[in-house]
Amino acid sequence: MKSFVPVPEGSDFPIQNCPYGVFSTKNNAKHRIGVAIGESILDLSAVAHLFDGPALKSHQDVFKQETLNAFMALPRAAWIEARSTIQKLLSDDVTVLKENPELRAKAIVSQKDATMHLPAKIGDYTDFYSSIYHATNVGIMFRGKENALMPNWKWLPVGYHGRASSIVPSGTPIRRPRGQVKPEGATEPTYGPSRLLDFELEMAFFVGGPATELGQPIPIEKTEDHIFGMVLMNDWSARDIQAWEYVPLGPFLGKSFGTTISPWVVSMEALRPYMVANPEQDPAPLSYLAHSDPYSLDINLGVTIKPEGGADHSVCKTSFKHLYWTLKQQLAHHTVNGCNVNPGDLMGSGTVSGPEEGAYGSMLELSWRGAKTIPVGDQTRKFLQDGDEVHRHLRLLFIHTYLYFIIPVVLELT
Amino acid sequence: MKSFVPVPEGSDFPIQNCPYGVFSTKNNAKHRIGVAIGESILDLSAVAHLFDGPALKSHQDVFKQETLNAFMALPRAAWIEARSTIQKLLSDDVTVLKENPELRAKAIVSQKDATMHLPAKIGDYTDFYSSIYHATNVGIMFRGKENALMPNWKWLPVGYHGRASSIVPSGTPIRRPRGQVKPEGATEPTYGPSRLLDFELEMAFFVGGPATELGQPIPIEKTEDHIFGMVLMNDWSARDIQAWEYVPLGPFLGKSFGTTISPWVVSMEALRPYMVANPEQDPAPLSYLAHSDPYSLDINLGVTIKPEGGADHSVCKTSFKHLYWTLKQQLAHHTVNGCNVNPGDLMGSGTVSGPEEGAYGSMLELSWRGAKTIPVGDQTRKFLQDGDEVHRHLRLLFIHTYLYFIIPVVLELT
Repeated sequence: MKSFVPVPEGSDFPIQNCPYGVFSTKNNAKHRIGVAIGESILDLSAVAHLFDGPALKSHQDVFKQETLNAFMALPRAAWIEARSTIQKLLSDDVTVLKENPELRAKAIVSQKDATMHLPAKIGDYTDFYSSIYHATNVGIMFRGKENALMPNWKWLPVGYHGRASSIVPSGTPIRRPRGQVKPEGATEPTYGPSRLLDFELEMAFFVGGPATELGQPIPIEKTEDHIFGMVLMNDWSARDIQAWEYVPLGPFLGKSFGTTISPWVVSMEALRPYMVANPEQDPAPLSYLAHSDPYSLDINLGVTIKPEGGADHSVCKTSFKHLYWTLKQQLAHHTVNGCNVNPGDLMGSGTVSGPEEGAYGSMLELSWRGAKTIPVGDQTRKFLQDGDEVHRHLRLLFIHTYLYFIIPVVLELT
Repeated sequence: MKSFVPVPEGSDFPIQNCPYGVFSTKNNAKHRIGVAIGESILDLSAVAHLFDGPALKSHQDVFKQETLNAFMALPRAAWIEARSTIQKLLSDDVTVLKENPELRAKAIVSQKDATMHLPAKIGDYTDFYSSIYHATNVGIMFRGKENALMPNWKWLPVGYHGRASSIVPSGTPIRRPRGQVKPEGATEPTYGPSRLLDFELEMAFFVGGPATELGQPIPIEKTEDHIFGMVLMNDWSARDIQAWEYVPLGPFLGKSFGTTISPWVVSMEALRPYMVANPEQDPAPLSYLAHSDPYSLDINLGVTIKPEGGADHSVCKTSFKHLYWTLKQQLAHHTVNGCNVNPGDLMGSGTVSGPEEGAYGSMLELSWRGAKTIPVGDQTRKFLQDGDEVHRHLRLLFIHTYLYFIIPVVLELT
């Protein structure tokens, strides 16, 4: 399949991808839903009337909203139909849009002219902890080798509620947080800027489908109807604030100063070619968590750090397939107690670390809690410095969505 | 001050209270903002045009919304002006509403005819852990007397992010959650209904004022501008699910199956007469948490349990003044890292336990983890049973808002 819209060699956005996002332009400040294609965006608000299949004919208004929530709230059949309609509209073999210059002029926008926004209004945000390599590494560092994995870890996808208000789209500056820390050996805590600022390489999925009712779990065999699509995520972490605050109620201010997601949401349909067999789970999961259909995703992920004024240097290469728990298991577990979910809820994977040192998804692990230095060009790092930019990459056969996360220079006096 | 609207002796809602809520009626399904007075509600959408003071004249539309968020988003001066206007409109000495039968017929609704809804769209929900008696009790039970309070507890108001989607107004049935539990002595966890269902007596405040910017803390001396008012809260807890899941990332499914709040929000102005000196804090809090103006609240709180078909029996009497950390300290701490807050965010106090046994705010403490029985009329309890209703009370000199929380009969087969 090929699009009439030019797609440069190696573009993130061939017609096989078609991720959804929300954008505005200088000439039109209204937030609109768009689909990335090559170096352009197809403005769905301009072609809403062309979604005339059985699932969408009476729901064309969802493409005229300022967020993706209403579209996400439709049943999965509507998402599949939308993707197929979009691919048709963009296809080189179909004339509807291709040979209508007036409509094309309205509907095709250059990405250069667009500002990207959060794709959805995020009601609730949950972060899981599903990489066994990450959980083991952190466990060894903080509790020793014997107690690295907590007894519950292989029985359930451990997760926690995160802060939704501070989730921002890629490119939004993140300010180094201040807070309370207690340096090792100190007798009392002090207040000041975090010294141990870290990234966490994650992906996250948006919940879709009609809102569920309080008290009604989503059985594992229905979870697919509620997994809309995925974004890249950076779970910024202040390790010193986190270490002092997190016992016994979990991460709070060490995380809530900012979480960055990619502006483009890749649909699960686009990711289907990358689904591979699930990791073996021992012990076997309890029945409410058991599923045998492949839903692990072999998505290559990478992180580079770009010191202020410098160039990008790779610090980590891993794959999403290293997750122990699948997205289906995460969602079935999240709702087993009757917790209701809404379209637009976001569920993070937890740091995606692989088995080897170069595949660790955080500086905490890469620098082994500051015991080693991480080469970054002609500089080194243990944790992030002011002005560093953290870029992360997602590479599939057809997409290598490139997203960046900026930490600006913030001078903080202690 | 006295209202022309009848206020029965001992009513929760004299003119000194005037709490805000959102209601609808059989004849008018639209959600409207109202103020409770005696056994009636003043429908603010019907009198919006009468808010003609300098702070509200150009914002009368906030009283025509379906939630309190837009009103909460106004600066504190507008809340004070609104309260004064409402008290004037309801006063026996003022004729505007009293002597306009047509407007009165439109604006005064009987509470009997009203269905109450959530007062605001809650963006983010945070729960603190601010009673030293509760934290100490739980600490002794789970970690022994030596390590009862964690080292950070007296330095910062410990808190965690909660689930916003499952917050419901008083009266909404709560279903006994299912989940994974690992009974003591068992080698493997099992799946089934929670056997240790508990309440937690809490209050919570709604954040108000304009949304803050990411990266901008609220200094402690400005926190009052962002504390709109308070509700009663029941943080339903499944102790067996919680015990197995919560290490290391905190409470998750043991809490997210439901949180109940009262439909009426009492403004901080109405609570001002109950402000008392803050508890002594040793060690002295760090400067970003220090304030000397009294902001502790001497609010008498109580819980009764009503077995199915039976009568109410008191199980706990306590006061909100037992909180170690003030609401101001909670909010200053929450935002010190730059976390942004929005009007309509909800911040729970944590279980309000007092120093004596009869003042413990949860069955976990009252039954000392199941070691004792709690008399409930001619029955006893260690944890809640299907069909129990949990009622909690708030008593001030002028208000004793009576709210109830129902657990319906839910037969769960293991």
